[in-house]
Amino acid sequence: MSKSVNVCLIGQKFMGRTHSNAYLKVAKFFDLPAEPQMYCISGRNRAELEAFARRWGWQHAQTDWQKAVTDPQVDLVDVGTPNHLHCEMSIAALEAGKHVACEKPLAGTLAEARQMRDAAKKHRKQQTFVWYNYRRTPAVALAYQLAREGRLGRIYHVRAFYLQEWAKPDVPLLWRFDKQAAGSGAHGDLGAHIIDMARFITADEITEVTGAIQETFIKERSIPSQGAKGGIAGGAKSSAQGKGKVTIDDATLFLAKFKQGAVATFEATRMATGNQNKNGIEINGDKGSIYFNFESMNELMYYDATLPRKVQGWQRILVTNGPNHPYVSAWWPDGHGLGYEHTFINQTADMINALGGRRPLVPLVDFEDAYQTQRVMEAAVISARQRSAVKLSEIK
Amino acid sequence: MSKSVNVCLIGQKFMGRTHSNAYLKVAKFFDLPAEPQMYCISGRNRAELEAFARRWGWQHAQTDWQKAVTDPQVDLVDVGTPNHLHCEMSIAALEAGKHVACEKPLAGTLAEARQMRDAAKKHRKQQTFVWYNYRRTPAVALAYQLAREGRLGRIYHVRAFYLQEWAKPDVPLLWRFDKQAAGSGAHGDLGAHIIDMARFITADEITEVTGAIQETFIKERSIPSQGAKGGIAGGAKSSAQGKGKVTIDDATLFLAKFKQGAVATFEATRMATGNQNKNGIEINGDKGSIYFNFESMNELMYYDATLPRKVQGWQRILVTNGPNHPYVSAWWPDGHGLGYEHTFINQTADMINALGGRRPLVPLVDFEDAYQTQRVMEAAVISARQRSAVKLSEIK
Amino acid sequence: MSKSVNVCLIGQKFMGRTHSNAYLKVAKFFDLPAEPQMYCISGRNRAELEAFARRWGWQHAQTDWQKAVTDPQVDLVDVGTPNHLHCEMSIAALEAGKHVACEKPLAGTLAEARQMRDAAKKHRKQQTFVWYNYRRTPAVALAYQLAREGRLGRIYHVRAFYLQEWAKPDVPLLWRFDKQAAGSGAHGDLGAHIIDMARFITADEITEVTGAIQETFIKERSIPSQGAKGGIAGGAKSSAQGKGKVTIDDATLFLAKFKQGAVATFEATRMATGNQNKNGIEINGDKGSIYFNFESMNELMYYDATLPRKVQGWQRILVTNGPNHPYVSAWWPDGHGLGYEHTFINQTADMINALGGRRPLVPLVDFEDAYQTQRVMEAAVISARQRSAVKLSEIK
Amino acid sequence: MSKSVNVCLIGQKFMGRTHSNAYLKVAKFFDLPAEPQMYCISGRNRAELEAFARRWGWQHAQTDWQKAVTDPQVDLVDVGTPNHLHCEMSIAALEAGKHVACEKPLAGTLAEARQMRDAAKKHRKQQTFVWYNYRRTPAVALAYQLAREGRLGRIYHVRAFYLQEWAKPDVPLLWRFDKQAAGSGAHGDLGAHIIDMARFITADEITEVTGAIQETFIKERSIPSQGAKGGIAGGAKSSAQGKGKVTIDDATLFLAKFKQGAVATFEATRMATGNQNKNGIEINGDKGSIYFNFESMNELMYYDATLPRKVQGWQRILVTNGPNHPYVSAWWPDGHGLGYEHTFINQTADMINALGGRRPLVPLVDFEDAYQTQRVMEAAVISARQRSAVKLSEIK
Repeated sequence: MSKSVNVCLIGQKFMGRTHSNAYLKVAKFFDLPAEPQMYCISGRNRAELEAFARRWGWQHAQTDWQKAVTDPQVDLVDVGTPNHLHCEMSIAALEAGKHVACEKPLAGTLAEARQMRDAAKKHRKQQTFVWYNYRRTPAVALAYQLAREGRLGRIYHVRAFYLQEWAKPDVPLLWRFDKQAAGSGAHGDLGAHIIDMARFITADEITEVTGAIQETFIKERSIPSQGAKGGIAGGAKSSAQGKGKVTIDDATLFLAKFKQGAVATFEATRMATGNQNKNGIEINGDKGSIYFNFESMNELMYYDATLPRKVQGWQRILVTNGPNHPYVSAWWPDGHGLGYEHTFINQTADMINALGGRRPLVPLVDFEDAYQTQRVMEAAVISARQRSAVKLSEIK
Repeated sequence: MSKSVNVCLIGQKFMGRTHSNAYLKVAKFFDLPAEPQMYCISGRNRAELEAFARRWGWQHAQTDWQKAVTDPQVDLVDVGTPNHLHCEMSIAALEAGKHVACEKPLAGTLAEARQMRDAAKKHRKQQTFVWYNYRRTPAVALAYQLAREGRLGRIYHVRAFYLQEWAKPDVPLLWRFDKQAAGSGAHGDLGAHIIDMARFITADEITEVTGAIQETFIKERSIPSQGAKGGIAGGAKSSAQGKGKVTIDDATLFLAKFKQGAVATFEATRMATGNQNKNGIEINGDKGSIYFNFESMNELMYYDATLPRKVQGWQRILVTNGPNHPYVSAWWPDGHGLGYEHTFINQTADMINALGGRRPLVPLVDFEDAYQTQRVMEAAVISARQRSAVKLSEIK
Repeated sequence: MSKSVNVCLIGQKFMGRTHSNAYLKVAKFFDLPAEPQMYCISGRNRAELEAFARRWGWQHAQTDWQKAVTDPQVDLVDVGTPNHLHCEMSIAALEAGKHVACEKPLAGTLAEARQMRDAAKKHRKQQTFVWYNYRRTPAVALAYQLAREGRLGRIYHVRAFYLQEWAKPDVPLLWRFDKQAAGSGAHGDLGAHIIDMARFITADEITEVTGAIQETFIKERSIPSQGAKGGIAGGAKSSAQGKGKVTIDDATLFLAKFKQGAVATFEATRMATGNQNKNGIEINGDKGSIYFNFESMNELMYYDATLPRKVQGWQRILVTNGPNHPYVSAWWPDGHGLGYEHTFINQTADMINALGGRRPLVPLVDFEDAYQTQRVMEAAVISARQRSAVKLSEIK
Repeated sequence: MSKSVNVCLIGQKFMGRTHSNAYLKVAKFFDLPAEPQMYCISGRNRAELEAFARRWGWQHAQTDWQKAVTDPQVDLVDVGTPNHLHCEMSIAALEAGKHVACEKPLAGTLAEARQMRDAAKKHRKQQTFVWYNYRRTPAVALAYQLAREGRLGRIYHVRAFYLQEWAKPDVPLLWRFDKQAAGSGAHGDLGAHIIDMARFITADEITEVTGAIQETFIKERSIPSQGAKGGIAGGAKSSAQGKGKVTIDDATLFLAKFKQGAVATFEATRMATGNQNKNGIEINGDKGSIYFNFESMNELMYYDATLPRKVQGWQRILVTNGPNHPYVSAWWPDGHGLGYEHTFINQTADMINALGGRRPLVPLVDFEDAYQTQRVMEAAVISARQRSAVKLSEIK
């Protein structure tokens, strides 16, 4: 690998901004084996694309994504488009010999996810990454490290939640409420993150979804006027006046069992009033417990059950101490916290490190790993439909 | 009714103390239509019973519970014994013409609960009560009031939890781990409380248990030496040396749906390290949300989604303001919080009020009401066994 | 000493209730060397006094306090009257050969406090106690124990605060706003508690008040109608219509230095909107820190700076674990918290223990000890008036 | 003004990074009237400077600061050097006709601050700014807005604190412990921020420092080896072996009064174990209160005393809601918080807006405003030395 990595990013909406910002900043803060170059941005709307490229400093703007991903100058293709496009774009990039970083969840359907996993297997010399960025919140990475040190012991309980509130009844029928465009609702948007987080910190695999509910509270929403925005959604659906049918889940809840014996609840919802972005997990083991909530992203709660009982208590660790906490030494002094965007920059640093042959600070998600998360998602969908338990071994 | 209520309490263990304390104190703090008299305490061990009676000021001690409950002087029989004894004792008391207050859950089995419900129906002129004491935590009663005022609006989510940690692997095989004596484990001990709490605050009924897990993490525990104590359990199980089999659940989790459309998670466990008594609930409606956790029992968290968005936030209400918060004016000045025991005293005040023809501050649980909670418990047990959804309409 | 302690309590208002409740309950929960007998209650208003005696079970009611304290049957006189009466009553009781428990602060003036201290010295065989009840909050007693174990190390900072909000502009001119009756305002009512708490946990003495502010924000208040009540105050001040002058401090703040080098802020106020009863302290040492706030009275926050830096964080210790936390084993299982009233019951247990020759769990305050707190109070008053630093050595 | 603003930044240490990052990012997120150009970086060490310029994309690197600030291409000089250099550099820049942004506190001494204020007055057409960046934490800006809306009412209490812990006894004698280089210790480094924050949110002025303590807990520290680092300090002092004298304050505490009647405590310290960066304030008014702590920088606590008493409570406002909370709409969706660095970027946006004739979102600090903060700092120093109250009117 040369001393720079030419990046081609497809997508210029919400994720387009978070990724652009990451490529812009990563080499200012991290010492990397190579410097990412903001080589090419790709998107459909030429006018928007060029303005975006200018603002962020992308060297080229290309409305034809196929040309973009096959450009010989490109080293890494970053797929930041809606879920149903991940598969085609990622496989094209792999076949063009590129490394691929893809937004989560891996794909819009399990079948596509499987294809992507297989393609990655076939192109072993190229690396694949999936943007499960929350792994690189310092507090989550610290939870991972504490678990690996044996500080949780045998795990009994996992309680994973991703609670948002933006999908109020008056929010119109954005693309995020459309199964065609989004694949799923809260389940793929939010639930995927917490399945990955649970698998990551426990280093264990789910073997069964014991029961599941997928609920659409607001069955119809008003058709938005052209160009409307709302909630955290970007686009808008179709034409006619009046109301349209919501085809995705507002909330998905399921119970699960892990291979090593833990039981778990998972809950993803966009209608938990009072919770703007409560993305987190509690894990209870026989030696200790951890609790994380992204709304207080610079904190990890840790309960050490091996301390003298007299002083046992949930410890609020402010995960901002450079030498001792993951990713922090690249940033600011103790107590000077990070924000949402830094999770992407930290992941970018690890991806560049991985491309340069270095070991990431905590494991990155590749297509194989993300495929396992997708299988759990599928099991929950089937369990909700069948109204009974589903073994993961049945999900290929 | 005369100006005093003669109470006969059966049971002198943990609940014997909490109830005795309540009868001792209630008339010191509340202005009541009648004064409870600590007339008779009943228990099996004569020596212990007499010491207990002396300490607490019970006028009589009676080892034969049947004599105790049929004593013509007795107005109210309070059943504070293990679950499998509730049915026989309560029905005997009803048939002797007494009012009955019974510890929760209503019974050891659904069939017994049904018999008790039927007996209560038959003896309509006598009142029945069940000690779902947490309803009378001021913060929980306030949550009930806020919901009745319409401050939650349409409810989307219920998240109920009762997390304890005391059942560590080295805790011996107490009676609480024995199905015969205890009926169930975490499910009946803890889960019953949160099912009642969810039904109470929402004023809605569960129509389906969609999935359930009942887990025994520690399959065998050491046989305790005679007279041993451990955790919050009172008694101990005998016989052979070495290890004995645990026959109850350490944890029970289930998903549920409510009649008016809410979806719910319920989790009761004795093995959630770091949580000593986290008995609580979060409810999200379209107008507001509430959160309660008994570990901070003097606080109710409330999110008012009708305030200007700029200042919306979870409000930590310190529920200690006499004129404005339920039960508090009987006690101390603002900010001078209450403890666990006060939930029993508050319930006792409401029971005496009800016997005197007054309206309790918030609804009391009678046998009919507690039977509905027992049906939900049964549905969860069946769902866990069948590994599929169970409609409440199937549970008679 | 016989097997019972005959108590004579003077005062039947707020403190009359808290003390009566303590004598009623203490022997139910603690195993004591003697049982307190509720022998005699004394107060001025005969009708109220007799109703009070009946309700609480005091055997005698005596409107003449001098007769009450000299009754040969009485062992312990408990002075629960306004501050300006403490001195005369306590000394009379000491001269009658009684043990004395007196409400805080020790006296209305330093001169009276000195007399009381001297009288206590003279009657060495009798014991004196002062109701600095917050020492017996389990969390505060635990803080004391942790400090004695050396867990704080060298102390740098003390930050003591007692914040209430009830003295809103529309609260009328109650006796608590009257210097004659109350001695001082926030300073004596609230500040005294936190000076004691700081001295208790640090086991160190204040050597200088470096600066002080005593502020009366609301200079005049409306004269209450007869029998009016408001805030946490009990009585009411008389005469003319319209407004009357407030003669006490709404807030007192001061800076101080401790003998062993710590610097400190103290703040007592009745006008800190949003704080109902935030009575607490933070202490920072080189090995650790503690934080306590009575609004969350069952919690102690502890920061252990000797743990590996990676996991250092404020530990929220739920101080409810029987065998491991002070006073708790007398009460309920883990996680079943105590309330305000239990601080008085715990102190009563320790006083009875002390009278029976046992050692209290943590040190009790006697007249000598309370006199030291009163000296600090006086230094703050002088510093505020002189607008300069005052050495404690100047305060006799 | 042209469509770009050429910036010359002097300083390449901690503040050099935060400012460079701000200039790099601001135009990516904000729509500005002009784009800042990273024109020139200035510093003493050529090798370090050139590496820094390369990393951050500064177009020029200039070791002679005087040349740098007089370069005709430069529009804005940003002084990010130690305090004792602010005066000379800022005045030189003003005299060269530049706008000036200076790090806080304004100067190393009051006399220098006065000169700077006077120079700014003389060069009225040029704008001056001081980097009191915390004003632009969205939560702090929201507190300002709430106060301006009258939501606090009459203010009674200000409780300002800036607590760090890094100056442990084993931290060597860095430049931050040297009066010559740093001007002051905790007082100027931390205290300046909270004086500014208090003046900002209250929109009121301090009229008196009633008492003050300046304390150096660790009188001597070891001389660091060349190039050593420690704590959040950058440089290192001198040569000889062994220990050297600390010439600054580890902690400064003072009491103050505001013009409109509020009383206040201020505490700045580097030795409050357990507090990594607890920079914040509580303000109590008769209509409401606010609390802010930078360790939870995305939250503002607000108590609205005009709500029905039943639901009053501290509201935890997650200040991340684009349309409703200041600065947030430039960034990410609701609940996706910001970090320390964003306070600088927000300030940069406002400075560029101000240079372009737009109004900043909340008031910026100019030299006149920062001079007022410096006068308060001086009053505290004098009060600590004289051991008595000091009127601000005495400080010119």
